[in-house]
Amino acid sequence: MTLKIGHLGPTGTYSEAAALAYARAKLAGVESCLQPYPNIAQTLKAVAAKEVALAIVPVENSIEGGVTMTADTIWQLVASLQIQQAIVLPIHHALVSVAEDLSHIETVYSHPQALSQCQLWLQQHLPQAVRIADNSTTAALATLAANPQAAAISSVRAANLYQLPVLVRSINDYPDNQTKFWAISLQPTLAGNRTSVAFSLRSNTPGGLVTALGFFANRGLNLSRVESRPSKRSLGDYLFFIDIETDRYNCRQLKSALADLDAYAETVKNFGSYDTTIIEVL
Amino acid sequence: MTLKIGHLGPTGTYSEAAALAYARAKLAGVESCLQPYPNIAQTLKAVAAKEVALAIVPVENSIEGGVTMTADTIWQLVASLQIQQAIVLPIHHALVSVAEDLSHIETVYSHPQALSQCQLWLQQHLPQAVRIADNSTTAALATLAANPQAAAISSVRAANLYQLPVLVRSINDYPDNQTKFWAISLQPTLAGNRTSVAFSLRSNTPGGLVTALGFFANRGLNLSRVESRPSKRSLGDYLFFIDIETDRYNCRQLKSALADLDAYAETVKNFGSYDTTIIEVL
Repeated sequence: MTLKIGHLGPTGTYSEAAALAYARAKLAGVESCLQPYPNIAQTLKAVAAKEVALAIVPVENSIEGGVTMTADTIWQLVASLQIQQAIVLPIHHALVSVAEDLSHIETVYSHPQALSQCQLWLQQHLPQAVRIADNSTTAALATLAANPQAAAISSVRAANLYQLPVLVRSINDYPDNQTKFWAISLQPTLAGNRTSVAFSLRSNTPGGLVTALGFFANRGLNLSRVESRPSKRSLGDYLFFIDIETDRYNCRQLKSALADLDAYAETVKNFGSYDTTIIEVL
Repeated sequence: MTLKIGHLGPTGTYSEAAALAYARAKLAGVESCLQPYPNIAQTLKAVAAKEVALAIVPVENSIEGGVTMTADTIWQLVASLQIQQAIVLPIHHALVSVAEDLSHIETVYSHPQALSQCQLWLQQHLPQAVRIADNSTTAALATLAANPQAAAISSVRAANLYQLPVLVRSINDYPDNQTKFWAISLQPTLAGNRTSVAFSLRSNTPGGLVTALGFFANRGLNLSRVESRPSKRSLGDYLFFIDIETDRYNCRQLKSALADLDAYAETVKNFGSYDTTIIEVL
């Protein structure tokens, strides 16, 4: 049986590269096929609806931070999505265009995160170009061959796939740019060195967040990430996404910390425990 | 002497509306003039460079969350920017266009936050339209009169200023949409019911964030907001922005909590203590 893996498309995105890296590292011998989706929310909904067995979605970037659509969607979906693996990818953005040189470029297309990750470079080298926010870094590539006034911020790999020239390499503002992806499915995950949980608090609990985080800290469990997102109920009302460092030695402490959180918080979603694969070269 | 107030331009932005509301509420009798800037970073840099006495910048929205450019810039600037006041504005987005109806619209311009705040509406009513991320909600308005295939997400106030028709009112996905702005200057602020601080931790401190937040919680000081941003050093390394509820009864506790944080954290920036003005109707 072929395993279907959903990712943000069209072909050539960093999400697709992460999906290929995941299949290579973790699904050796399993026949798999990739299924692109037009945006991150639809990719996650495809897992919930069992259209695909697995989805690969970006979670956070080392420069621009959390991918808000991923956090907001996994919180909102009723299905209990579970993280199977984290995949960390090095990001090297390139300016892709058939233009002869930068002076001809009037518009630059990419995903908002990629545009942000190259904002200083764009300000310096293409101050007059209009920046167009696409759903992905590759959405515009199919139209670039016919448009010498346009460019896209994408990867060298994507440029090769679309047979387009790379005009400038390595245009990220910070050379050490990485993105973390999650491989998500409906299968429960129980073991791994990282556990991800999201929760909302009953409103107006004084010291509420510190109390909630204390359930973990007081048991010697370290938090490697805390991110807040608006609950969308009112200004100042948040959800919290936390990653907890875990291993087989402290799973009893984790269980009791989670039980305390369950009793204290309004809603808790446990996205499971998983390991991280770091990809050095694509 | 005329007080210069910088804000994200061009004229008509929500930042300008917040600046006008601030001047009305807090600068009665003071002659002031508004100075638009092309992006948020330049607005804040203008205060640091004393080009303007005050800047009004968006901080967070009740639906889309933190405005990352504001957080990243006030952290990076060497000048000690101080928050004088928070201003909360109701946000009612409108679709502005000279098009006869929605079927003619091929592109929609706005600030990325506004595009995100209307993403469900756009998906449903303008699924084929290209979304263009501008530096502000009003950057495209000057060109709309000549372009019946284009629309902008902006306010009714901005449409009136540019003498453009409002095609659809109230297109935000969540009707209860508010944005908080900060009025920022170089003048030290010492009193108010909210205190904003940002800090980075020495790397690999286990339980570091909980320890840092505990300095406040253990003294009965409530945190109304915790937001993490990448330090841009490496994936998993963060800065934290916190808002502390304060009043004249607990300023001694605040002082000692901040002293503990100063000793414990790597870098601490105190943006001052201030009150909040809530604007009901623009």
